[in-house]
Parts: sequence; structure tokens; C-alpha cells
Amino acid sequence: MGPFLRDSAQVPEDADPPKPAAVVIPRTTEHVATSVKFAYDHELPVSIWAAGTGLAGGALPYEGGLVIAMHQMNSILEVDADARLATVQAGVIVQDLDSAVRKYGLFYAPDPASSARATIGGTIATNAGGLRCIAYGTTADHVAALTVVLADGSVISTGSRTIKNATGLNLTQLFVGSEGTLGIITKATVWLTPIPQGTPETFLASFDSIDDAGRAVVSMVKSAAELEVLEMLDATVTQWVEEDNHAGLAIPQAALIIGMAVGENAARSVDIACECAEHAGASEVRRQPGDGLMAVRKLSLPALQKRGVWVQGDTGVPVPRLPELIAKIEDIAEEEQHQVRIVAHVGDGNLHPMIEVVDNDWDTANRVTDRITAAAIELDGVISGEHGIGIFKHHELPMQFDEATLAAQHAIKKALDPKGILSPGRAI
Amino acid sequence: MGPFLRDSAQVPEDADPPKPAAVVIPRTTEHVATSVKFAYDHELPVSIWAAGTGLAGGALPYEGGLVIAMHQMNSILEVDADARLATVQAGVIVQDLDSAVRKYGLFYAPDPASSARATIGGTIATNAGGLRCIAYGTTADHVAALTVVLADGSVISTGSRTIKNATGLNLTQLFVGSEGTLGIITKATVWLTPIPQGTPETFLASFDSIDDAGRAVVSMVKSAAELEVLEMLDATVTQWVEEDNHAGLAIPQAALIIGMAVGENAARSVDIACECAEHAGASEVRRQPGDGLMAVRKLSLPALQKRGVWVQGDTGVPVPRLPELIAKIEDIAEEEQHQVRIVAHVGDGNLHPMIEVVDNDWDTANRVTDRITAAAIELDGVISGEHGIGIFKHHELPMQFDEATLAAQHAIKKALDPKGILSPGRAI
Ligand SMILES: Cc1cc2nc3c(=O)[nH]c(=O)nc-3n(C[C@H](O)[C@H](O)[C@H](O)COP(=O)(O)OP(=O)(O)OC[C@H]3O[C@@H](n4cnc5c(N)ncnc54)[C@H](O)[C@@H]3O)c2cc1C
Ligand SMILES: Cc1cc2nc3c(=O)[nH]c(=O)nc-3n(C[C@H](O)[C@H](O)[C@H](O)COP(=O)(O)OP(=O)(O)OC[C@H]3O[C@@H](n4cnc5c(N)ncnc54)[C@H](O)[C@@H]3O)c2cc1C
Repeated sequence: MGPFLRDSAQVPEDADPPKPAAVVIPRTTEHVATSVKFAYDHELPVSIWAAGTGLAGGALPYEGGLVIAMHQMNSILEVDADARLATVQAGVIVQDLDSAVRKYGLFYAPDPASSARATIGGTIATNAGGLRCIAYGTTADHVAALTVVLADGSVISTGSRTIKNATGLNLTQLFVGSEGTLGIITKATVWLTPIPQGTPETFLASFDSIDDAGRAVVSMVKSAAELEVLEMLDATVTQWVEEDNHAGLAIPQAALIIGMAVGENAARSVDIACECAEHAGASEVRRQPGDGLMAVRKLSLPALQKRGVWVQGDTGVPVPRLPELIAKIEDIAEEEQHQVRIVAHVGDGNLHPMIEVVDNDWDTANRVTDRITAAAIELDGVISGEHGIGIFKHHELPMQFDEATLAAQHAIKKALDPKGILSPGRAI
Repeated sequence: MGPFLRDSAQVPEDADPPKPAAVVIPRTTEHVATSVKFAYDHELPVSIWAAGTGLAGGALPYEGGLVIAMHQMNSILEVDADARLATVQAGVIVQDLDSAVRKYGLFYAPDPASSARATIGGTIATNAGGLRCIAYGTTADHVAALTVVLADGSVISTGSRTIKNATGLNLTQLFVGSEGTLGIITKATVWLTPIPQGTPETFLASFDSIDDAGRAVVSMVKSAAELEVLEMLDATVTQWVEEDNHAGLAIPQAALIIGMAVGENAARSVDIACECAEHAGASEVRRQPGDGLMAVRKLSLPALQKRGVWVQGDTGVPVPRLPELIAKIEDIAEEEQHQVRIVAHVGDGNLHPMIEVVDNDWDTANRVTDRITAAAIELDGVISGEHGIGIFKHHELPMQFDEATLAAQHAIKKALDPKGILSPGRAI
């Protein structure tokens, strides 16, 4: 975990990392069950290390605890192309699954930028997002069934291989996003998606007013345009990308919107999106067949990394409230005299404010991050849009949940893990 | 509840219905909370009566229990067209919400055939489906946030108004489909969908072999065709519809497939679907602009009702396994010398076998229904695709869930409702 990826709380560089008592490297569900049963009997705290790419600290070990390391549970067990389902061990790397199913004309839609390293189990446990959520939803929307080892070592099976299921409680979605607190996912059956045909089409739209950009996004989202990606960079980040890459970008005064459509109607969708942009007052709109313009989005993180150390926030608000949130962030940055840059999955209201860490002063950066979260909550937002809570955002939970709602979560945790051995003190 | 709607178990016509001690008709969340707290303190069983259209008996009162009747909680509290969200009291009728939002160019996608009477809360509590699930998913996919009264009268808020949310446990989806066992939903924030533009296009495809029909469906589902509806009637039901309506249907030897596409690409999608049908060996394919051919599907239930009393099954299997399930149903019908007809939401593998009730012999019909469920489970299916478990299918639960998985569901039930007052003995 580089400092860039430390998210909204500091892990002091000089701190001794906690030393677990043992690391188990299971190959089967039974191995996991036996290990967890041992931890249960001896009341050892258990952490789960899948690929360790998580940005909330949820996979960190406990002092004297047990680590379950998932990397050897990496078999793709079955691809059922007709049913559009794949069953994998939880340690399979996201990209490996995606590559394995493409020969059937299918792909695995969840695409966190970490997909070359992150695992199916880790992305399910954090309900990971990515760039394509506006078209395909988050990881949650692609999970059909799970095998889970509970705290006492018992093994349960959730969900089904059917598209519709109205039988019993939806345990599958309870484990999705539970960040290792309720059980250890050992096997997952996930939905695959037909690969869209045709040439993608991309566009860039520059805005000199953030309100105009916000209005453009709202109208795109409500329109018939079927976009796969809809992203935003603030003006300064756009300028940095341009400085580094000389892509010929017009530097907007407020924000750059980047969109892509795929499939047979890509061009038509981009027509509509560009009309929305122009109608909302874009100062420049540029479009292009192919996915070339998407590079601008991907170059934004290197451009940021080159220019500083940042706490990466991960808040979300309803799409129409994005301009208000951005205005509030600007106010906070000004009040705190602190640089905050913005990149956003704007199409689904998920915003990553980048809060600079100046002279290794993480405390200030974290305080600014918490203020931004509070501002988002006031605008009907959430603490985390896609990275989860883990350790780093745990103190923010009462901003979003009242006592009764937190108590209900704790009651469920206690029901499934009465001794509190699984990822204690994290996520909920 | 007419006998047709009794679903897969008998409610003897002559049985005295259970007599509740009291019926509460709340208008606010606080009213519900006060009533439930009273029931909790006095350990009274509580049932929830929304519109009573449920097909699993989950809304029936308990002898000496409390009924919470939701029909006065029928206010649409807010429509936020830009965010595509509506917030309603749980007793709002599905169709009323849909009608209210159409003026914004939006609609409410879940469309159970009961939408003129069923409530938002009831359809959430059963995760109701309908005809359009292949395009929009089930009710679950349209729920953003809930206000829920728990068994002890405490009130919690689940979910968010954001598209993405990785904060805490997904309590929202835990209450979706929980059939009144975990809490009483008093308020829901749901997602609205842009109304597709353009003329719909429908098609009929006749098949003389059920395997061919199955192959056609699999290839449609995997193709680029964006269908909103994909249904199936067996040959006999098709013939009955034709007898009653003289629509000029070619009577297939095996099954009739009915499909519809909407939106700007409707014609193109139906092109693709018809190609799939022909390629798979359809004996006749007919297409038509507009939604006219959909009437054939809707006329199937009256045609059935006219010809007998039926237990309506509701099983689901992975789409590619439908032909196998249908073959097994035919075997069972033959062995039992019992008429079973089939209508199906074939595009998502959700099948409603119609098991005839001969001479008021519900026991035989129910035994046949259970055998069909068992056959579906062997084919990786589920007990209920969209109607839920309630009372009527409760005895079937061990067919789908092993002991540990049932125990996990009961542990969660116990955590949220320690005295077991909410819909006891039902659904899980
Ligand atoms: C370069 C980079 C880019 C990223 N981009 C994105 C992005 O675009 N979108 C996004 O949403 N996230 C992104 N992330 C963060 C994202 O959360 C993680 O990449 C991923 O979801 C975690 O997967 P992992 O396998 O590494 O799990 P870990 O990091 O090992 O674990 C993460 C959490 O999941 C739990 N967990 C892991 N495996 C299991 C299991 N089998 N059963 C139960 N619990 C388990 C752990 O307890 C922990 O709490 C990015 C991270 C990096 C480093
Ligand atoms: C003619 C007809 C056609 C139908 N078509 C379909 C169809 O196409 N697809 C489909 O899926 N279903 C269909 N159904 C059945 C479907 O389950 C119900 O229509 C609907 O979901 C139940 O809604 P309701 O408001 O009537 O709830 P009720 O029948 O009153 O209650 C149903 C269940 O939900 C619980 N419940 C109700 N309200 C709440 C609440 N506020 N909080 C917590 N729990 C609650 C009850 O405890 C009960 O278990 C049909 C039924 C009929 C009669």
C-alpha cells in the first residue's frame, strides 16, 4: 500500500505493523473452515488477506491474530456460458476471470482499477465499483451465489443460479460489502455479461461552470444515451494531464466530463450525450470513435501522484447534488487553505476528492477528509461509494447511521459471529 | 383470494379463518412503532396486511394476533425526477406510483400483474417480479432506501439515495423479500426509470420441440437483442387462447414464445430475436410493430381459469435448464395422471406450472406441486422465483437449504426479532 492508496486515514509509516500469530494459506473451503473453527475455539481475531489492494485497511492483520490468505484459492471451477455464470474460488483475480470467459463472447463486468490484482472475494467483500458502474452496476449486481464459512466454522450456501429468487432471506447481498465481518467467502458464482459489439465512441466536454457540468450530467443520465462510462476531472487535474501529455485538451474553468458508449448504438448514445453537454453550456465538446479519449481519465492518477501525496476520499451523493458537493468542497478547501482536487465517477455520483498531504501532515488531510464526508452526508450522501469502511472510515459511521440502525447491524454481526472474531472493530 | 390464486397449497374453503385480537390501521411510522412495541411487550404475533394479493399466504392473520393493515399509509411523499427517486409510504399502490411519475418522463419498472392493487411495501417484502424482469430486474433492483420498524418498536433507516453505497451492511436487501419476518417497512425510496421512446415491437415464435424452444431462448438471452419481455405458453394453453379469441395463432406442438422489445432499437432487437428463433428451428415466426401480440400472454390466465381450478406453481431454474425442467414436469404429470399446464417468464427461467385441482382434491395437486419443486431444485432451481414462501411453501424450504444455511437465516431472524413476534413460522 503506497501512501497514495492510504485513503482517508493515515497509517503512520514508522508504526510497527501488527504481528499476527499465524498465517493460513488455504486451498479449499474445508481448510478455511478448520482454521476458522480453531480461531473460534481459541477466540483469536481473524483477518482476511485477499490481494491487499483494499483502500480501507480492512485486510490488515491483528496482533496475535490469524490471517487467512486467499491467494491459493485461485481456481476457476466452472464457466457455464449458456447460463452466463462462472463459479470460482474466492482468491481468483478479477482480470483472470474476465480473460477466461472472453472466448465465450462474455465478460465479467465489475472493473475496479485494481482488477489485475484484486480478487473476486475481495471485490465482493467490499462491493467494489469501477468505471463502468453506470452501465453494469457494482460488484453486488453480479453475484449470484456464495459459499461462506461462518465464524464457528460452519459452511453455508447463499443465493442461487437462477436469475430470479424469492426464497428465504437474501444472505448473498448481506455478505456482499460486509468486508470480512460476517464470514469468509470461499467460492462465488457470478454473472457474466455478453460482450457489446461494434466500435466504442468517446467524448470530452469542457465546462466553465460546475453547475452547467452538473446539469449536463443529470440530463445525460435521464436521457436515452446508454453510456458505459461518465467521468469528471476538475480544471486543475485536467491542466496537469495536459501538461504531462500534450493531448491538446482545452482547459476548462470548472471541469472536464469524459464519456464513453459501447455496443451497436454507441454513436447514437454519444450524439445524445454531446447534445446534453452543448445544451447545458459546454465550452467545448469533442468526440471520437474508439476508446482513445478514455486515456485522459486514466492519466489523471499519475498526474496527481507526480504532484504530491494525497488522501483519496470516496464519497457519494445523488447525482443532482454533485455541484453542491463540489461547491462545499471548494469552500472547505478555502477555509482550511488546503488543496483538494477532484476526480469523480460523476455518472453515479461517486466522487473521489484528493486531499493533499503537505509535509507529511496526515492529521490535517484526514480532518479535511472528514469535513468533506460530513458535507456529503448533509447532501443525502454516503461515507463510502465503493471502497468500504474498514479501519480508516470507522470513526465516520455515526455521521451516516443513527443508533438504532447501527445497533441492527451489530445485532446481525453478533448473530453470525457471537464471539466477534471476524475482522473485529472494522467496517460496521 | 380466489382458489386460482391459492398458489401451491390449499386453504380449505370451509376452514374458519384465524381471528386476530386487533387490527391496527396506522397512518405514520410512529403509529406502526407504537403498535409493534405493544405487541412486543405482550408477545402477540403480528401479521402485515398490505393489499392481500400475495400468493403465499404470508399476510394471513394469526389467531389472537395483531394485524397491521397498511392501506392508509398511502402517500407519495416525494418525487425527485432529477435523481430518479421517489419516496412513498409503504401502502402506496404500485400503479399509483407509476402513474404519478409518468409526467416526469419516468416510470416505476416493477410490474407484477397485481400492480393495480399490490402495494410498494408488499412487493418489496416479497421481491415481486412481473413480465419485465428480463429488462429491469425484480423489485429488489429498484429499492434505494427503507424505513423499517423492528420488532421492539425501534425505527431504522437502511440504504441511501446514492447510486453506489459501500457503507455498512446491506440491510436494505435483507428486508427485501423478507416477507414481514424481520420488520415492517413503513417508507421506501425507490428508483424510477426513464420511459423508453419509440414504438414497441412484438413477436411470436412457435416451436414443435421444447428443446428447440429452449435453445432459442438461450440464444436470445445471450444475443444483443434487448428484450423487455420474453414469455412462453405450452401448446395446450396456446390452443385454449386461440379457441377463446380466434387470434389466428398457429398451434405449436411444443410451445409458443412471445417477446417484446421497446425503445429506439426495438425493431433491431426483434430482428435478432426472430433470427434466433428461426435458427433454433421455429415452425412459425410472426412479428408486429406495437405491443398487440402481448395480449396473447395476458389471455392465457383467463383461458386457464375458464377451464379449471389450478394451483399456480412458481419455480425457477437457470435458463438453459428450462427444457429439462419441462420434460420432468411432463414425466411427473404422466406418472401422476394429472394435468399440468405451463406458462413461464422464460427469459429469466421463472416458470409457473399450473397444476389442476380435480374435484376439489387439493392434496393431490399440492403433492404434484411439491414434486415439481423437487425436480426444479435438482436442476439448480429455487422453490420460489417471485411469489415468496409465506405459509404455503414453508414445508419445502429444506429442499433448497441445508441445515447450516437455514440456521443462519434463523439466527438473523432471532437477532432482529428475539421474541419471534413478526410473521412467526413463515417465509424462513
Ligand atoms: C490501484 C488501485 C485501484 C483501485 N481501484 C478501485 C476502483 O476503481 N473501484 C473500487 O471500488 N475499488 C478500487 N480499489 C480498491 C478495492 O476495494 C480493492 O481493489 C478490492 O475490492 C479489494 O480486493 P482484494 O482482493 O485486494 O481484497 P483485500 O484488500 O485483501 O481485502 C479487502 C477487504 O475485503 C475482505 N475480504 C477479502 N477477501 C475476502 C473473502 N474471501 N471473504 C470475506 N472477506 C474478504 C477483507 O477482510 C478486507 O476487509 C483500488 C485499489 C487499488 C490499489
Ligand atoms: C392477480 C395477481 C397477479 C399477480 N401477479 C404477480 C406477478 O406478476 N409477479 C409477482 O411477483 N407476484 C404476483 N402476484 C403476487 C405478489 O406477491 C403480490 O401481488 C404482491 O407482491 C404482494 O403485495 P401486497 O401489497 O398485496 O402484499 P400482501 O399480500 O398484503 O403481503 C404479502 C407479504 O408481504 C408482507 N408485507 C406486506 N407489506 C409489508 C410491509 N410494509 N412491511 C413488511 N412486510 C410486508 C406480508 O407480511 C406478506 O408476507 C400476483 C397476485 C395476484 C393476486
